[in-house]
Amino acid sequence: MFESANLDHRVDKAAYLREMPKLREALLNAQFDLNQHGRFPVLILIAGVEGAGKGEAVNLLNEWMDPRHIYTHAFFEPSDEERERPALWRFWRALPPKGKIGIFFGAWHTMPIIQRVQGLISEGEFGHAIHEVVRLEKMLTDEGVLLLKYWFHLSKSQQKKRLKSLEKDPATRWRVTEREWEYFKVYKKFIRVCEPFLRRTSTGEAPWIVVPGADARYRALTAGKHLLAAMRERLDEKPVKQLPDRNPPLLSSANSTNVLRALQLDQPITKPEYQKQLQKWQGRLNLASRDPNFRNISVACVFEGNDAAGKGGAVRRVTSALDARSYFNVPVAAPTEEERAQPYLWRFWRHIPRRGRFVFFDRSWYGRVLVERVEGFCKEADWMRAYTEINDFEGALLRHGVVVMKFWLAIGKDEQFKRFKAREKTSFKRFKITEEDWRNRKKWDAYETAVCDMVDRTSTANAPWTLVEANNKYHARLKVLKTLTQAVEDALDRVAKEAKKAKKK
Amino acid sequence: MFESANLDHRVDKAAYLREMPKLREALLNAQFDLNQHGRFPVLILIAGVEGAGKGEAVNLLNEWMDPRHIYTHAFFEPSDEERERPALWRFWRALPPKGKIGIFFGAWHTMPIIQRVQGLISEGEFGHAIHEVVRLEKMLTDEGVLLLKYWFHLSKSQQKKRLKSLEKDPATRWRVTEREWEYFKVYKKFIRVCEPFLRRTSTGEAPWIVVPGADARYRALTAGKHLLAAMRERLDEKPVKQLPDRNPPLLSSANSTNVLRALQLDQPITKPEYQKQLQKWQGRLNLASRDPNFRNISVACVFEGNDAAGKGGAVRRVTSALDARSYFNVPVAAPTEEERAQPYLWRFWRHIPRRGRFVFFDRSWYGRVLVERVEGFCKEADWMRAYTEINDFEGALLRHGVVVMKFWLAIGKDEQFKRFKAREKTSFKRFKITEEDWRNRKKWDAYETAVCDMVDRTSTANAPWTLVEANNKYHARLKVLKTLTQAVEDALDRVAKEAKKAKKK
Repeated sequence: MFESANLDHRVDKAAYLREMPKLREALLNAQFDLNQHGRFPVLILIAGVEGAGKGEAVNLLNEWMDPRHIYTHAFFEPSDEERERPALWRFWRALPPKGKIGIFFGAWHTMPIIQRVQGLISEGEFGHAIHEVVRLEKMLTDEGVLLLKYWFHLSKSQQKKRLKSLEKDPATRWRVTEREWEYFKVYKKFIRVCEPFLRRTSTGEAPWIVVPGADARYRALTAGKHLLAAMRERLDEKPVKQLPDRNPPLLSSANSTNVLRALQLDQPITKPEYQKQLQKWQGRLNLASRDPNFRNISVACVFEGNDAAGKGGAVRRVTSALDARSYFNVPVAAPTEEERAQPYLWRFWRHIPRRGRFVFFDRSWYGRVLVERVEGFCKEADWMRAYTEINDFEGALLRHGVVVMKFWLAIGKDEQFKRFKAREKTSFKRFKITEEDWRNRKKWDAYETAVCDMVDRTSTANAPWTLVEANNKYHARLKVLKTLTQAVEDALDRVAKEAKKAKKK
Repeated sequence: MFESANLDHRVDKAAYLREMPKLREALLNAQFDLNQHGRFPVLILIAGVEGAGKGEAVNLLNEWMDPRHIYTHAFFEPSDEERERPALWRFWRALPPKGKIGIFFGAWHTMPIIQRVQGLISEGEFGHAIHEVVRLEKMLTDEGVLLLKYWFHLSKSQQKKRLKSLEKDPATRWRVTEREWEYFKVYKKFIRVCEPFLRRTSTGEAPWIVVPGADARYRALTAGKHLLAAMRERLDEKPVKQLPDRNPPLLSSANSTNVLRALQLDQPITKPEYQKQLQKWQGRLNLASRDPNFRNISVACVFEGNDAAGKGGAVRRVTSALDARSYFNVPVAAPTEEERAQPYLWRFWRHIPRRGRFVFFDRSWYGRVLVERVEGFCKEADWMRAYTEINDFEGALLRHGVVVMKFWLAIGKDEQFKRFKAREKTSFKRFKITEEDWRNRKKWDAYETAVCDMVDRTSTANAPWTLVEANNKYHARLKVLKTLTQAVEDALDRVAKEAKKAKKK
């Protein structure tokens, strides 16, 4: 990866002064066009060898372009806000929206590389980190992000020279501390880790661009020209009407059996029995939520279901058992302008709770493979890749110890009809029934197929779908409450055991 | 993944007899169209639970369609031919060409799953196998393969019932041995391994399709209809003229320094000195090739270089040191019809040597990122992803212990002119100089850029590019010979050490 960068590249001052103003102007123009049309975000990752001019590059980009439309993020030690959420969360929330430029000074590559150099993770774990990066970056580029990854490079002798010259100059002496010389000592080891990392995370859509860093003028001009070319190429691209379909269809059943129809939707229960059980499980959930170990857990609950299946009512029976400070509800409606300017999952990422909290999603990221699929709001390629993206997303939550619960509330077609009619008659429930509900109902079968595919493709050992028979509201509420409570209790047991084990050591 | 498949799905005989003939006819038609137009190959992977009807499905597909255009491969224990090559080689060489249907009964998923169930590989190694599968399948689908992955499934109780009923029938009793009941015992463990495997290797382009396997008629109809829908969708697709460009440009240098220009191309050496050295290194190479440990090694050498740089002459100086039975030359010309019907790398896969052999490629898979890039023979997206594909391919060779050598023979533009002119004058060399050589020469700069990108992106710690200064042929030949000999000697040392270590244990 570093053959070219190890050479001695220079640009003399005269050439620089001749070319730089033209480059700046062109970059400003490109940024203006990007901002005007806002079709995609640009995300620039800055990485590389100590002393190769990473910081200078960040400053220069902000100087050359309009800094109001550049969001620069440096990632140091994670904050408590960040530590209490999955490792990628800090990057998710810092993504630039469409039309803007984001600069990440260090990003998801930083920790795996440092940890591997220091021997804190094994070659196997390093490999997994690499694959996670590839999957994340694939999702971003699939979502239209122009992802530019710059690696500023110095050879070992160039690094030595650079550090010496910084040390000599009184104005920059402070920049060379023991730490820098420590880095210099492990140069070879560092490169042995970085080289395969760069190679294995380079793809056609997100290749690493290695910039020779020894000469300030050279690296400014090369990186700047590359950024310009990359932006220009995407900006000037003619919109393509139709993409080839590279996704085989999913399975259609040869008969009428499916996971929804296999449910016995009517599960009668008397009111007194319901009230007794409700009290019992609400009490247990409340107790669990006040367990000292709950501070180490967070819970993300997804509620999906047929229209009028009683999602809201079920959520209320859960939340009424909880301290209002320990949970929040996220009713998912059409995405806001801010959300539309981001990758699909972004509007859910932002609601990932800190430790010790519940979050309840009334509809969720599964909209991608339900309503968006059925109504054609997104392309087949988009909802097909969404299964993988959702599993990756939930996998990140699970690895971080989040309890992920997913409920599908199922009612029959007749039951829905009865409820729609009843809603139309009851004045205070009329707001709950719209033309859209009747329209959706006509697509009952298409939704049914989408739900079955969703369950098959996203029900996992650690985050299974719970299918809730909901013709009887009492039964549905109790099943939700009980399933959730038991899952939280299991998680608390796990945390307690782990704490005990850690103590023994 | 298995929620739907665990249900009891049935199709009655009457319905089956009504639908089956129509399905067969439609499948035959689709196969005919595929064969006529030959735009893509169909590759069907058959996997799943014991007793779920995998074998029956394979037979049925062959029965329903025209078996002359179906290539069915079952993969049992690897043969010696296969064991002596990278693990994927047996699959590479069995890929169906465009216009044909290939059925793999067991494939690259089989070994990782079995090894993980038996505890022979760790969770980490299993994860790596998963990522390798994803990369391989991405390459295949990028190359246009319609990849359909069917998983035939049974729940535990269904499996028990199935085995019992096979045992009861005298005609099928032989099919249930102790092995089958052993599999039954580890059913849960098996599923715990398979479920994440299927989930994590499912992508939009290559999703796993889980077929409920309990009822023969049901599984035949569902799988058959899915295959039909998948083929039909691709066959009926209108060719798309232009794809959006999702590949950022590579780096252009801001000055004229690059890895080629940094070479000191003139490396004078006297003829007597050359002859002395030639003898010495040819002797050492010959000795190395006759080392008993050489039977555990194979060597793949790539020769690339400017036109008239002396590739052929260099190869001859190497091979004249070797026993003719221990090597073969692969001169790479335009791909044959058979080769054009396969993924790009296929025509090189087929020449991967067994152990104890050398293979010399005069031009190679690097054509993708050299001539095909420069001449526009493939799209940017294709040569951009080729860097990753090539690194994966060479990685597979390296993991298998193949010594991978890559030589770029570099001459100057003036030197090339002199050699072209000389060739035109010498009657027996005139065949070596064509109009095309003069045309290529005009694109000198574009080729130079492509070579530099290639070196930066594919020179790896274990398979580096050797840049050979070749204005002086003597020097070039010696450098090639010496570099290769030392690499073989190093590999022999490594094998000897490993053998010693294994003996100690």
